[in-house]
Amino acid sequence: MPDQPSLEILDEAECLRLIARGGIGRIAYSGRYDLTVLPVNYKLVDGAILFRTGQDSLTVADLRAEIPGGEYRVAFEIDEFDQATRTGWSVLVQGPAHHVDDASELAQAQAAGVEPWPGGERDHFIKITLMRVTGRRIQSRPDADAAR
Amino acid sequence: MPDQPSLEILDEAECLRLIARGGIGRIAYSGRYDLTVLPVNYKLVDGAILFRTGQDSLTVADLRAEIPGGEYRVAFEIDEFDQATRTGWSVLVQGPAHHVDDASELAQAQAAGVEPWPGGERDHFIKITLMRVTGRRIQSRPDADAAR
Repeated sequence: MPDQPSLEILDEAECLRLIARGGIGRIAYSGRYDLTVLPVNYKLVDGAILFRTGQDSLTVADLRAEIPGGEYRVAFEIDEFDQATRTGWSVLVQGPAHHVDDASELAQAQAAGVEPWPGGERDHFIKITLMRVTGRRIQSRPDADAAR
Repeated sequence: MPDQPSLEILDEAECLRLIARGGIGRIAYSGRYDLTVLPVNYKLVDGAILFRTGQDSLTVADLRAEIPGGEYRVAFEIDEFDQATRTGWSVLVQGPAHHVDDASELAQAQAAGVEPWPGGERDHFIKITLMRVTGRRIQSRPDADAAR
């Protein structure tokens, strides 16, 4: 069916370009109560995904429980879709996450200006290393993006 | 800081109302290559999340590998955010997924009219049972939604 939207695999450079825009992404991790997926506001800082949360948040507690001082494998997803045209894209990052506890790394994270959306004390930083980055785009025609 | 957006926990009825609208959601599962999160177009059918994919897709292969004839724990997330006002909501479903292989269940799934966005053969159905449903909303003022 030639008129149906097609699924295209994005190369890593395109994925990184989309990640670099920052904004809302979703962290997935294996938590105390099963697999968990939660949205966070993030920035790409020095090639890593950085976001802030509360010291006492469930996410931190879950990740602390799993990684006392270590690293923990998580997934991070961003996407954008247009219901009207049924087009869009998604990027998936798979890699280790760690708590930003080290003083110099913390200072760098604080300087990056990444802000959580909800208020309250959210001064704990979590960083995700981009170990594996994959992406896909659904577009209405194979050549729809040719002029880009 | 009274002007900062606040985080509100959604009750289950509100979560179900948001899930019932259907559209794009994200399935998370522990795959061959680590934790995976992928967007799918879904419908809520008979109280379960239903989506379609290709028989030969990686998702199906991953889930088949983990659940030969059985059920597998996944997470499913939907959200909606407004960058301008820094408000939005998200709902997280945690529960078992299964392949719709049974003939009568398959007929019911086919009748539901859930469509995958990309073209190609996508005649395999996966169903997620809503075992645990949680949600949260970020709003600019505690009473911003009062008129709803």
